[in-house]
Amino acid sequence: MDKLLQLLKFNDKGLIPAIIQDEKSGEVLTLCYMTKEALEKTLDEGKVYVFRRSKGRLMLKGETSGCTQSVKSLTIDCEGNSLLFKVDQLKAACHEGYFTCYFRKVDKEGKVEILGKRIFDPKDVYKSQ
Amino acid sequence: MDKLLQLLKFNDKGLIPAIIQDEKSGEVLTLCYMTKEALEKTLDEGKVYVFRRSKGRLMLKGETSGCTQSVKSLTIDCEGNSLLFKVDQLKAACHEGYFTCYFRKVDKEGKVEILGKRIFDPKDVYKSQ
Repeated sequence: MDKLLQLLKFNDKGLIPAIIQDEKSGEVLTLCYMTKEALEKTLDEGKVYVFRRSKGRLMLKGETSGCTQSVKSLTIDCEGNSLLFKVDQLKAACHEGYFTCYFRKVDKEGKVEILGKRIFDPKDVYKSQ
Repeated sequence: MDKLLQLLKFNDKGLIPAIIQDEKSGEVLTLCYMTKEALEKTLDEGKVYVFRRSKGRLMLKGETSGCTQSVKSLTIDCEGNSLLFKVDQLKAACHEGYFTCYFRKVDKEGKVEILGKRIFDPKDVYKSQ
């Protein structure tokens, strides 16, 4: 792990951004942030773990919804500033129930067009929270 | 532009991360950062402008190399924390001469495998710098 960490630059909060892309469809699913610990756990277990900034803790992506992401490959950018994981996405990546978090197409005027359909209803999935 | 900006959250440095994806191949090319000004210029001109943190200024992506990125679409994530641009990439996105900045596949031990081939030689493109 040390040799990998030498290739990477974590920011002043100890985080590195990680782009998550669905391997099969090529769709970009989400952008998350990892600590060294999150990266190590992700590589050890083969499932994406993120540092959830709003909760201040390490979480398995899909911990509540069951929509986990199985890691297929990891590439790093030319400067070691960010990560790109290709994954196999279970059901849907977005807490709003869409396959990808990038389901809102926008233009300069702020007009929003919703792309794709809801795969699950957030009210059912997160009702106990 | 104001309505679009209301949907977005810029960080405490006035930046928002933008994932750049090649529309045709689906390859993720790079992760950059935009100020409000960079986003506006990108949407006005249809070419990606970035806030280059190392230089502290707004730059046309590909200003030196000529490898510009023509914007095809913009989507935003569910929380308005990041942008995803699909683009038409001229030649290559990476200053190292590769099509994508994510040309290094890595494993937990830090072993690096280079994906793809160099499209241009950085020494030729950046020789005057």
